[in-house]
Amino acid sequence: MVQIEQDILAKNNAYADANRKEWKARGLFAANLVSSPGSGKTTLLVETIGRLAGRHPLAVIEGDQQTSNDAERIRATGAQAIQVNTGKGCHLDAHMVGHAFERLDLAQGGLLLIENVGNLVCPAEFDLGEAHKVVILSVTEGEDKPLKYPNMFAASDLMLLTKVDLLPHLDFDVAKCLDYARRVNPKIEVLQVSAKSGEGMDGWLAWLEQGVAAAKH
Amino acid sequence: MVQIEQDILAKNNAYADANRKEWKARGLFAANLVSSPGSGKTTLLVETIGRLAGRHPLAVIEGDQQTSNDAERIRATGAQAIQVNTGKGCHLDAHMVGHAFERLDLAQGGLLLIENVGNLVCPAEFDLGEAHKVVILSVTEGEDKPLKYPNMFAASDLMLLTKVDLLPHLDFDVAKCLDYARRVNPKIEVLQVSAKSGEGMDGWLAWLEQGVAAAKH
Repeated sequence: MVQIEQDILAKNNAYADANRKEWKARGLFAANLVSSPGSGKTTLLVETIGRLAGRHPLAVIEGDQQTSNDAERIRATGAQAIQVNTGKGCHLDAHMVGHAFERLDLAQGGLLLIENVGNLVCPAEFDLGEAHKVVILSVTEGEDKPLKYPNMFAASDLMLLTKVDLLPHLDFDVAKCLDYARRVNPKIEVLQVSAKSGEGMDGWLAWLEQGVAAAKH
Repeated sequence: MVQIEQDILAKNNAYADANRKEWKARGLFAANLVSSPGSGKTTLLVETIGRLAGRHPLAVIEGDQQTSNDAERIRATGAQAIQVNTGKGCHLDAHMVGHAFERLDLAQGGLLLIENVGNLVCPAEFDLGEAHKVVILSVTEGEDKPLKYPNMFAASDLMLLTKVDLLPHLDFDVAKCLDYARRVNPKIEVLQVSAKSGEGMDGWLAWLEQGVAAAKH
């Protein structure tokens, strides 16, 4: 079984390298958003796209087992979006994402946001060619998740702690959560945001714009 | 790849059948709790064990990628608990659960609660030998999850809608969520609960006690 897993990952990595090369040639910045189901990825993206207000070319690849709900929510903002349905599959892989990208029309200097299947385990293993994995953890999920699902937090460069508007109604210890995340990944950056109240959205937009600027060169 | 997946599932099913036979011979009722990370499974179990107040022999098998936090929380109630760490694995399988069960001392007529790895995708495929899968969906995750992760809701006999104490602070449409769950699985039972406020806990305890009574015969 280990051999089979290695073969699958090697094949995926080859596709991921091809995606990365293509996106680099086009000066695109790609982020792979990973989380549990229901952490608020799509709501965050809708709010993000609204605030970016056409400042950069932008497209979204949406992953889900079933439905095109998320792509429809993104398209309602006016942005391009492609839905990938994985069926029984538990993650996006680089091959699916490469094909989805072919169907998008994203200009030089653009931002490619990939919303993975909601799963805090399997997508950690699959490089899609992105510049960064961004792990999204909502405060309703409990502060212990970085310790319980360490692979995902180790694989990510940024953690967005979302739904912080709900903190007054929860027993969630922010300091403990950040400590746990840094134990698993000492270099992880953290931003606290609420797509609903707008808190922290400026920091997240600045992070994205820095990535877009760096990818252009 | 399809052949390999079939082989893995066939092997798992054989172990699951052995577990089911053994638990039946002992008159045990086993429930497999599945959900996203952070839906509140462990908090619900702690509260459930407290309310059952020693009325039935009881043991818990806890699944997580890493840490023994959950088993420790269960043991603090006085109940037996075994932690299974799956490492990179994304679900419990029947073989792991069979071995964990060997280390428990659960009397005739008892209740075996299995808390799966937090993952709304992969555990749907793996029978552990349980009488029922119970899918737990917290209201903070959004009402569309049954449509987006249909395999898990189709595989479950009961849906517990948890954290309903937070409904006043959320835009969550309960009726829509139940409609979606029934579209995927017309026979699914639904209970709305809050381990925090105690709302709906009586119905959940009654469901468990009915299972325990039926397994004794």
